[in-house]
Amino acid sequence: MENPVGVFDSGVGGLTVLRELVSALPSERFVYLGDTARVPYGGKSAETVTRYAIEIANHLIRTRDIKLLVVACNTASSLALPVLRKIYKIPVVGMVDPCVRRAAALSEKRTIGVIGTLGTVRSGAYEEALRLSVPSARVRSIPCPLLVSLAEEGWTDSPITRAVIAEYLAPFLVDPPDALILGCTHYPVLKGPIREYLGDGTALIDSAEEAARVVDILLSEMQVRRAVAPAGEVEFLVTDDPERFARVGKGFFGQELPDVGSVAL
Amino acid sequence: MENPVGVFDSGVGGLTVLRELVSALPSERFVYLGDTARVPYGGKSAETVTRYAIEIANHLIRTRDIKLLVVACNTASSLALPVLRKIYKIPVVGMVDPCVRRAAALSEKRTIGVIGTLGTVRSGAYEEALRLSVPSARVRSIPCPLLVSLAEEGWTDSPITRAVIAEYLAPFLVDPPDALILGCTHYPVLKGPIREYLGDGTALIDSAEEAARVVDILLSEMQVRRAVAPAGEVEFLVTDDPERFARVGKGFFGQELPDVGSVAL
Repeated sequence: MENPVGVFDSGVGGLTVLRELVSALPSERFVYLGDTARVPYGGKSAETVTRYAIEIANHLIRTRDIKLLVVACNTASSLALPVLRKIYKIPVVGMVDPCVRRAAALSEKRTIGVIGTLGTVRSGAYEEALRLSVPSARVRSIPCPLLVSLAEEGWTDSPITRAVIAEYLAPFLVDPPDALILGCTHYPVLKGPIREYLGDGTALIDSAEEAARVVDILLSEMQVRRAVAPAGEVEFLVTDDPERFARVGKGFFGQELPDVGSVAL
Repeated sequence: MENPVGVFDSGVGGLTVLRELVSALPSERFVYLGDTARVPYGGKSAETVTRYAIEIANHLIRTRDIKLLVVACNTASSLALPVLRKIYKIPVVGMVDPCVRRAAALSEKRTIGVIGTLGTVRSGAYEEALRLSVPSARVRSIPCPLLVSLAEEGWTDSPITRAVIAEYLAPFLVDPPDALILGCTHYPVLKGPIREYLGDGTALIDSAEEAARVVDILLSEMQVRRAVAPAGEVEFLVTDDPERFARVGKGFFGQELPDVGSVAL
């Protein structure tokens, strides 16, 4: 089936997920939308984030006829997923369940940490999913709002970033979790300093790989996989200036972004 | 004249300006709008920020019949002021000219620094205004995008904030400016650590006081001052969740915010 898979995020963070999707599903076509005119979602209310997510999903369905939607933003996944699943007939894949499934598989001590934006942590979406899937787990969640700005500033290997990480994550040193969910698509670029601070006893879980696996399974089960040849392609859309997105996004996607188009929502 | 003065910003930063306005003009009525559903403006394009500013101005004029508009956001002032002044009949006061006027009055060595968001610095609005008003000045501008997040996180007296300030402002130590324009309404809450880093030889200029003086003069000259009694009042509106705005805004306004209403744009 030629229709593309739709992927969206508030900005560049979701490119860490797209990168994994493209590598796992090289024959698929993707359309990525970064809502850069309204980024970030992390501190905004459930009502506002849900409204934005619906506008984006409507646009991708109406103009690109996507066959599946990936919400490559943990805040939007935490706040808007149930509503999106109620509205649309196509499958909607979020970031919460993939992370939780991986944490359940990796955590032996059943001590699981979650870090994310204010919106993600306040929503309690991870705690709820973990309670269902790993009832015996002790879960501790910490909002880390500054990490998004640091990742976007490109300070991924700076003493300042290490100090901010120490400030936020200090509570984890008391009773270290053996699995830490990186509950924000910006955080994978900060894996280095986070691992350095927490040590090797804590497995860092990012949603991208597991989400790619879920998309793979869904496309196969629904029998809507694209034929293996020719190779797929990716279209990039943003709601604000394409130039800055391409520049900052490179570090998140892991390679140059080709043409980025702009769209008004 | 009973009509209120309209004041807007992308979020809480403009409350540092409102605070000064209320203190300078206690008999006036004010309506403040924080565009918290789309905050921040600092990294967004001129087109997008101008569109948002027009939507806000339209709303305040249509629903509150404001007699004057204060753009209490340096990014919106830098990017959108000429367009706003062309569209509306009421006077529109921005943050750039008041800062520049004060810098011109205070700087003796004619070495002037400017710090602000990416959008403000890229616009060149301060350089242009300084070139006209202080032609002999040597001007150096540095974008400091992380300072907004640090101010909103409330880390105004943290070693991390001091380290970030040192990282951004180090170029100023080579040839210290004798006046530094705090070209973002968030920065006044960081005056302490900025002064500590640069020393007493650099005067820190924030737009609030001078902007209040300009508004005072305009209202008098236009003969639209409100009668001295009864005391004025302030109405607060936001485009996203009022609760977080009230909580974070307290530190910027210097006192508790009364009822905050919400508005859809």
